[in-house]
Amino acid sequence: MAAKHRSSLRQMDVHPALAPLMFLTGTWVGSGRGDYPTIQAFAYDEEISIVPLGAKPMLRYSQSTWRAGTKEPLHTEFGYFRPAGTDAAELVIAQPTGITEIHTGGIDGRGVVFRSVSVERAPTAREVATVERRIAVDGDRLTYELLMGAVGQPHQLHLEATLHRS
Amino acid sequence: MAAKHRSSLRQMDVHPALAPLMFLTGTWVGSGRGDYPTIQAFAYDEEISIVPLGAKPMLRYSQSTWRAGTKEPLHTEFGYFRPAGTDAAELVIAQPTGITEIHTGGIDGRGVVFRSVSVERAPTAREVATVERRIAVDGDRLTYELLMGAVGQPHQLHLEATLHRS
Repeated sequence: MAAKHRSSLRQMDVHPALAPLMFLTGTWVGSGRGDYPTIQAFAYDEEISIVPLGAKPMLRYSQSTWRAGTKEPLHTEFGYFRPAGTDAAELVIAQPTGITEIHTGGIDGRGVVFRSVSVERAPTAREVATVERRIAVDGDRLTYELLMGAVGQPHQLHLEATLHRS
Repeated sequence: MAAKHRSSLRQMDVHPALAPLMFLTGTWVGSGRGDYPTIQAFAYDEEISIVPLGAKPMLRYSQSTWRAGTKEPLHTEFGYFRPAGTDAAELVIAQPTGITEIHTGGIDGRGVVFRSVSVERAPTAREVATVERRIAVDGDRLTYELLMGAVGQPHQLHLEATLHRS
């Protein structure tokens, strides 16, 4: 009980350096569409959670998608947002597909564009060269586009989705 | 309710490729000790969770540490184990400190030694060059050693801990 109370208090004690990124926080539910020259286009349902990492100056990011209208899991990933001053941020991500991403991003109001500075792969993972993540929040609506250069294809749109704060 | 039932069923439906890594699964609670030439030695409490990622052939890994005997959070990280045949595995990790790691590891019975093939850092993160993670399970006891070459120091022991299945 005491530990639980302490944990609630800690969650309210958000680090001030997170202020420029707080517009991203919440549980977001929605749907999206994926396409790429090497695959069939597909529709997906999605849930994203972005919350402060206790009292530390980072946000914890988790995401899962399912084939649209089903409970069939598609992708999931996990990472952390790190503020870098008042108008920039970093994003680090690990994926069960064996990929890690590190991004730097510029914050413009309630939008942020992350471009990969590192995309690394485990030996058995697919080749991904570049990733770009454009995220915008308007009220209780979050939209994003994910562009990717992978498996020999040029950098291009791969995913776009619209989610609402739940 | 139906979705919840379906989810329970899925969790029992472990992918057969995970068999060589299942000895790692569980919730592990214990304590450890950290040291490095550039810091003061410290003691920590730790909780590790390693569970199958639904029916997919990966394990989800999360970890948190606290200063020994307190609720003061120290480190946390998140990642995925990926089997690579019957005696090898991959490990990808993201850390809120702005570091990503990708490892390949050899499995020997109920032990696995992971050596980094990639350690990447966000621009504001500390420099880490090499990481090695030696994990062994004996009954309900998990021990690990983490060796690291970082901030200009040679590769050496940084963390060692003993945890028990809770």
